[in-house]
Amino acid sequence: MRNLSMLIDFYELTMANSYYVHNKNEEAVFDLFFRSVPDDGGYAVMAGLEQAIQYIEELSFTDKDIAYLRTRKLFDEGFLSYLRDLKFSSSIYAIKEGTPIFPNEPVLTVRGPIIECQLIETMLLLTINHQSLIATKTSRIVSAAKGKAVLEFGSRRAQGYDAATFGARAAYIAGAVGSSNTITDRDFRIPAIGTMAHSYVQSFDSEYEAFLSYAQTYPNDTVLLVDTYSTLNSGVPNAIKVYEDYLKPKGLKLKGIRIDSGDLAYLSIKAREMLDQAGLTETKITVSNSLDEYLITNLLQQGAAIDAFGVGERLITSKSDSVFGGVYKLAALKHNGVLLPKMKLSDNVVKTTNPGEKMLYRLYDRNTNRAIADLVTLKDEVIDDTKPYIIFDPNFPWKRKVIENYIAMPLLEPIFIEGKLVYKKPSLDDIRSHHKLEMSRLWDEVKRFTNPHPFYVDLSEKLWQIKHDLIEQYSKN
Amino acid sequence: MRNLSMLIDFYELTMANSYYVHNKNEEAVFDLFFRSVPDDGGYAVMAGLEQAIQYIEELSFTDKDIAYLRTRKLFDEGFLSYLRDLKFSSSIYAIKEGTPIFPNEPVLTVRGPIIECQLIETMLLLTINHQSLIATKTSRIVSAAKGKAVLEFGSRRAQGYDAATFGARAAYIAGAVGSSNTITDRDFRIPAIGTMAHSYVQSFDSEYEAFLSYAQTYPNDTVLLVDTYSTLNSGVPNAIKVYEDYLKPKGLKLKGIRIDSGDLAYLSIKAREMLDQAGLTETKITVSNSLDEYLITNLLQQGAAIDAFGVGERLITSKSDSVFGGVYKLAALKHNGVLLPKMKLSDNVVKTTNPGEKMLYRLYDRNTNRAIADLVTLKDEVIDDTKPYIIFDPNFPWKRKVIENYIAMPLLEPIFIEGKLVYKKPSLDDIRSHHKLEMSRLWDEVKRFTNPHPFYVDLSEKLWQIKHDLIEQYSKN
Repeated sequence: MRNLSMLIDFYELTMANSYYVHNKNEEAVFDLFFRSVPDDGGYAVMAGLEQAIQYIEELSFTDKDIAYLRTRKLFDEGFLSYLRDLKFSSSIYAIKEGTPIFPNEPVLTVRGPIIECQLIETMLLLTINHQSLIATKTSRIVSAAKGKAVLEFGSRRAQGYDAATFGARAAYIAGAVGSSNTITDRDFRIPAIGTMAHSYVQSFDSEYEAFLSYAQTYPNDTVLLVDTYSTLNSGVPNAIKVYEDYLKPKGLKLKGIRIDSGDLAYLSIKAREMLDQAGLTETKITVSNSLDEYLITNLLQQGAAIDAFGVGERLITSKSDSVFGGVYKLAALKHNGVLLPKMKLSDNVVKTTNPGEKMLYRLYDRNTNRAIADLVTLKDEVIDDTKPYIIFDPNFPWKRKVIENYIAMPLLEPIFIEGKLVYKKPSLDDIRSHHKLEMSRLWDEVKRFTNPHPFYVDLSEKLWQIKHDLIEQYSKN
Repeated sequence: MRNLSMLIDFYELTMANSYYVHNKNEEAVFDLFFRSVPDDGGYAVMAGLEQAIQYIEELSFTDKDIAYLRTRKLFDEGFLSYLRDLKFSSSIYAIKEGTPIFPNEPVLTVRGPIIECQLIETMLLLTINHQSLIATKTSRIVSAAKGKAVLEFGSRRAQGYDAATFGARAAYIAGAVGSSNTITDRDFRIPAIGTMAHSYVQSFDSEYEAFLSYAQTYPNDTVLLVDTYSTLNSGVPNAIKVYEDYLKPKGLKLKGIRIDSGDLAYLSIKAREMLDQAGLTETKITVSNSLDEYLITNLLQQGAAIDAFGVGERLITSKSDSVFGGVYKLAALKHNGVLLPKMKLSDNVVKTTNPGEKMLYRLYDRNTNRAIADLVTLKDEVIDDTKPYIIFDPNFPWKRKVIENYIAMPLLEPIFIEGKLVYKKPSLDDIRSHHKLEMSRLWDEVKRFTNPHPFYVDLSEKLWQIKHDLIEQYSKN
């Protein structure tokens, strides 16, 4: 990756410079969290941590950067030297990629000198927001596909080169089986998939000739695009004819067909019949064209004979909701050597942040193996899961529930400790398996597209008390 | 820019390899065009050409790329050598960035060996689609702002690093005056803008102290975020107090305030009154928070006292419609030395492509200086604008109109001729001025957000005839 240290909101630099000249670089704690799930869904998926780590590891301001900043005539020379010499020294905790995540819980925390905390805000948000958006969308699409393959086909409609590349990575984490984008195969070993466009078929004198040429080049991987002229009247018959004339005599099968237009339910069912009649019962049918979780659900409900879904623009831009609203808020600040909790009050109770340095646990029921709730606690609180625990709704604290026979799993893992990378980055396939496992541990009610049941994100008694004391204190001022 | 040659849909490579092994690398013509404007708008804005040119200039496959491709066991060794030695040799014509563009007209054309044409498809589409999407969205937002400044604030919600960077570039082309993203100032001289976040205010013991510190650091550029606690009860009064206590004695003014929450119409009007009463009539009010062209229109209708709009996620992801649907279609192919027009028929008449190698003219009325229509012609057709010209609706050819006293401006400019870059890249400010000028030459009816009047994209008589002959010929088969 190239150095992206200057991909930073300008206000991080003006704030940092002002802190510097006021000699105000106390230790602070920032939380990265989000307030609502895209598409009114019941869960989101954490992604992008690996690239965020890489950014931090490569964080540095070059002489060229400093020279540019000097031209702005806003920055103190001492601050520019500080930037030039910057060595990351903060601590970062974060949730493992692929994990389902929920509103208002910290998914990443930073503790360090406030200038450093501020300098990394933009890139942390950008990285986590983008990949979590695409992982969340893809997870929904994969869930709709009910075990059929989902292929990421969106490169040409992605919002820039990184959106194509890291979007494909996020899609793979969330269960896509491959991508049309070749660079992600070279760099991440995400299988690159693809066969032909309509232009290939058009460039031959006939569809039959095009199909035959393709079969000659790829006898073991013959996948034919059958809708250039007419799917049922020419495409599928020509595909079958090429099988009969060329592949069958060699003892080979036709690997697949792809349909990219028309009514995909009707056409896939008819094409399946025609293929089966020709003995091509194992030939796979892939469809594409404006697919998303809603259309896929409908197609399957209508009995479409589809083996794989090629999903393009609606996945790679998360078209139905193209923003993941992660924010980065001050949670604590050292004052005379003591870390004091900080909170942003808001008229909107949901927008009031959780103060202090925190830890996050997920509580799983030992009987069902399903997640019961997430619990935000103070950093050093230990949940003894051999004992019953009372959870309560932080907005309605009289709504209480005793849970027993559970496991409390800490979700925030140490990534950097005082500047040193301590996290062993998991492989992409490990992350992908982790997503699949953790999805199986959520109740279906939480995963539903329409009006899903809210997953509980509760506060420990201690954290709740600190928050309410702060609210009282602020309201007295 | 890093080498992005491997950011390519895998099917471009499988098609190319198949062409190669069949010794089939005839000259072809491809058109890049789009079929509908995002947000049901009346016009789109061409952007991304400079990055597309850079990609072409840097097009090359490295040994590492070839080694990866070899692992796929699909590609002929001769083809891999061809890729390794590839020197771009095609010709590209394109519309200048910043130009308003319309559905179903070629905005970029490629003529060259079909393998080359195919290899560059993904990156051309990705580049033009992304930047045109953001330029189009921004142009609408700028138009809604009616001369007030629009600031691009979306980096943290962008879909990846390039989306933040090239999105800011596209926004600047379409009239944004600056961006929060610092890297685009360093690299493109797009003014980077920003002052402080809520965390800055919270990190001081009081709002007043935070504002004073900021004013001390930036006495000539004091812009204060006033909504951390209460905009009207504390933010604006504290801003005025810092002016009275610190700036006024130095003979300085308060440059601006920013409001990031609450009702922006009400708060801006009240804040304006308070500032004016304090003699701060020149202090600018910037607002941000979920803005787009619709909310900006509403705020201004309600008399909001706003000088600048900071627009974030809804611009940088084009949230209301996050896809620009550019496509890349075969238009002609050489056969026995003759370039034959090619067309993709469709049940949907709008999806039927325009065959052959083409040119595009924009016709302007000499009296009003407004654009009358675009005209797609054969490549070598010359429009003699000293003579009357009959335009007609290609779908209803009996609907005819004689135009006189007009200028016919060719829109497709030569970019590469047989592999050689012949285009003198305009500066970003030149592109930006060009956009502003060309927008002033569109009728307001075309620029309306709701149900805009369709701008005419007509075909020349000769092109129309060829198209209809081909339709007849295909329907006989």
